[in-house]
Amino acid sequence: MKKLLAALVSSLFAISVFAADAAPAAPATPATVKADTSVVRASATKKLIVNKEIPGYWKVTLSNPPINLIDDSMFDDLYDLVGEIEADPELKVVTFESANPDFFIAHYSSAKPRSRFGIPPWIETAKRLAASRVLSIAVIRGRVRGGGSEFAMALDLRFASRERAVFGQPEVGTGLIPGGGALQRLPLLVGRARALEIVLGAQDYDADTAERYGWINRAIPEAQLDAQVAEFVKRVLSFDKRVLAVSKAAINTAGLPVEAELQQTQDTFFQTFGWDGFKQRIPKLMQRGIGKAGEFELNLGKHIGELE
Amino acid sequence: MKKLLAALVSSLFAISVFAADAAPAAPATPATVKADTSVVRASATKKLIVNKEIPGYWKVTLSNPPINLIDDSMFDDLYDLVGEIEADPELKVVTFESANPDFFIAHYSSAKPRSRFGIPPWIETAKRLAASRVLSIAVIRGRVRGGGSEFAMALDLRFASRERAVFGQPEVGTGLIPGGGALQRLPLLVGRARALEIVLGAQDYDADTAERYGWINRAIPEAQLDAQVAEFVKRVLSFDKRVLAVSKAAINTAGLPVEAELQQTQDTFFQTFGWDGFKQRIPKLMQRGIGKAGEFELNLGKHIGELE
Amino acid sequence: MKKLLAALVSSLFAISVFAADAAPAAPATPATVKADTSVVRASATKKLIVNKEIPGYWKVTLSNPPINLIDDSMFDDLYDLVGEIEADPELKVVTFESANPDFFIAHYSSAKPRSRFGIPPWIETAKRLAASRVLSIAVIRGRVRGGGSEFAMALDLRFASRERAVFGQPEVGTGLIPGGGALQRLPLLVGRARALEIVLGAQDYDADTAERYGWINRAIPEAQLDAQVAEFVKRVLSFDKRVLAVSKAAINTAGLPVEAELQQTQDTFFQTFGWDGFKQRIPKLMQRGIGKAGEFELNLGKHIGELE
Repeated sequence: MKKLLAALVSSLFAISVFAADAAPAAPATPATVKADTSVVRASATKKLIVNKEIPGYWKVTLSNPPINLIDDSMFDDLYDLVGEIEADPELKVVTFESANPDFFIAHYSSAKPRSRFGIPPWIETAKRLAASRVLSIAVIRGRVRGGGSEFAMALDLRFASRERAVFGQPEVGTGLIPGGGALQRLPLLVGRARALEIVLGAQDYDADTAERYGWINRAIPEAQLDAQVAEFVKRVLSFDKRVLAVSKAAINTAGLPVEAELQQTQDTFFQTFGWDGFKQRIPKLMQRGIGKAGEFELNLGKHIGELE
Repeated sequence: MKKLLAALVSSLFAISVFAADAAPAAPATPATVKADTSVVRASATKKLIVNKEIPGYWKVTLSNPPINLIDDSMFDDLYDLVGEIEADPELKVVTFESANPDFFIAHYSSAKPRSRFGIPPWIETAKRLAASRVLSIAVIRGRVRGGGSEFAMALDLRFASRERAVFGQPEVGTGLIPGGGALQRLPLLVGRARALEIVLGAQDYDADTAERYGWINRAIPEAQLDAQVAEFVKRVLSFDKRVLAVSKAAINTAGLPVEAELQQTQDTFFQTFGWDGFKQRIPKLMQRGIGKAGEFELNLGKHIGELE
Repeated sequence: MKKLLAALVSSLFAISVFAADAAPAAPATPATVKADTSVVRASATKKLIVNKEIPGYWKVTLSNPPINLIDDSMFDDLYDLVGEIEADPELKVVTFESANPDFFIAHYSSAKPRSRFGIPPWIETAKRLAASRVLSIAVIRGRVRGGGSEFAMALDLRFASRERAVFGQPEVGTGLIPGGGALQRLPLLVGRARALEIVLGAQDYDADTAERYGWINRAIPEAQLDAQVAEFVKRVLSFDKRVLAVSKAAINTAGLPVEAELQQTQDTFFQTFGWDGFKQRIPKLMQRGIGKAGEFELNLGKHIGELE
């Protein structure tokens, strides 16, 4: 079994670090990640393409072929990006979309290389994005699952293609738990009952249901999505940055997660790579095609319920 | 008046205990019910039929003809059932449905015999159901009002027949208040404004409105309800029980009511049986057919608004 | 510039008091307004027309032609009205509708004359309305924006015409912030993400979207709105006032804003009249027709995004 696991290093749930090497003990993670913020790097790995043509507005395109997995280097890039966002006093809006029409972000991949921080400083990145006076917007097409959904939930607004966006937290179906904030942010957005349904059922959801549940701000017909987002961004850009900042700060007194709970969940998440549930499922997941372009990832919600 | 009341002992709001005997003083209730948990009894009164055919899954059918009133013995059965649920380490999912297509649960009946605890230990039962690592699901067809709606809200998930489910908190229309958690759980699910509308208006609501309000997880077409629930349960059964439990526990940090508020409301609820509002309405309610099979109970929401 | 501003005294954002006279310092506002409650005055300025024909029910019509701006005298009237509401032990329901089919309330106007309290005691008025045992209901037709939307959110229930109601918080588009509670009550009703969208986007919303977001209880077809509200009110009037009061009090433990945050936001709001963002926009707003009957106010959400 250990041999098989070791062979899977380069794929989605590359558990060599967590499960084979270290499990069942948790990795030695410092309680809070102290990151070197003195160096600002602009999307060093090219997984974040930042278009700064319009003053006050950064249009970020997520690009990690073939299925836009969010991996440690993308998390590091996001960490660096939030530093750049904070450093630009004229910036008002940042949007995030995907270069891949089928996947906004497929989900998290723990494949090497690891974060330069050891554990990606995602908790801090998300906290600073929410606290920033800059408005962050996810423009969602295609699948957005697991850590991708957790990334989208850490942004301020979520607009999604009614026909093409697909949402899911499939972690429990793989033997893991959602480790990047879904267990905290989903209840804030959709309430306890729907959060339990989403997480323990690990199903896929269409954009209309996601809107009804409050997972996203709004499902917008594909044909109007880009125009409506552009119009929305244009409006915000025309407004005064000081009142934008003060208004966001006031609204921020509600609806944000407790950091200690995020940290505890993240610690447990990394432990679940060493639990029996994941060890039993990862060979099947690998064989079926997880982390790779293909039918399995396109319909992950369905397939994850038919592993046994 | 006392004579008339005494004659109503066997029906819905059998107030002999609360109003005639004890009112206006509240019954002598210990602050917390200390129940004997050493004896596990399986649905002694046959009001809960438990099908355990599928490993890890208990399918509970509520059966208390003619209109599925939830009475003290059903509350005692639920209390015993939660003990059994906690005692089975392999159990993952419990669903609750009704043997009666017209009534999931009509509402509470205080008819004798009373609970073996004096006051049914419902607050504790609901608390332990929510805290349990087992996922509890209401599958709702027909009317679910008053204490029945409060029972459904104490479960983790609520799926309802789009065409056949009807929701209501009619208590205020009868001169009582909702005493089993609606005043706490409704605001958590639907917000203060809609909770006020539901409770102070005492109207009936269809399943689509209940879904929009967040009262239920989802309204599902009758023709697909059983298949979708079966599919959902099958998925959860295929998942690892440890990650299911950890995920539910994390989500449980939000969205649950404060026990002291539940207790205070329950105490007031029993007092309202002795208030003038209820005393004036109970003769009319009895005459019109409350607690009995028939048109009055089928359209209780409408009729309760036309008592005067 | 000061001259221009001084000329605008009688219109919507008459900033002579706040911006020209006192800005950028905040006006000397006592932390809590101590109002003289010994004198009960019934709609002294005739901006609130109170119909008391039906026992237990006050039907209030808002009337401040031409576009139903909510100004200091209307706030004073509302303050007096809440005193009257509290003083009538038989009162169960108060509804608020508009005499103007196009505007429920256009928005706030700081035009003189000022409140007899200096700053209108709106925070206290809203707090006492929510705490009152009387159920307050907004029946919304036409535009309801800014301080008008904040007034509607301070009432217990909101029913709106599906075809004719239009919602917005345009403040940020004018260089101000929402100062009357939207930054606190919107997150409670619609969550952080949608509150950020509404406030920072300053767009208009139709009633169906407002319902999906939870901004209002329900969008009701225009042809049924009056009948459904009348039916709802009739039901509540037929119920016992003691159980109505106890139920509302219990639900009030959730979903209400923190007073200190309301106060801090109001203080900042008055400061924003002196900020550059507003000073730059007010001449354009005046020129385009803000605060006056006409196309600009009818489609304020659109126009506010095209000022620059």
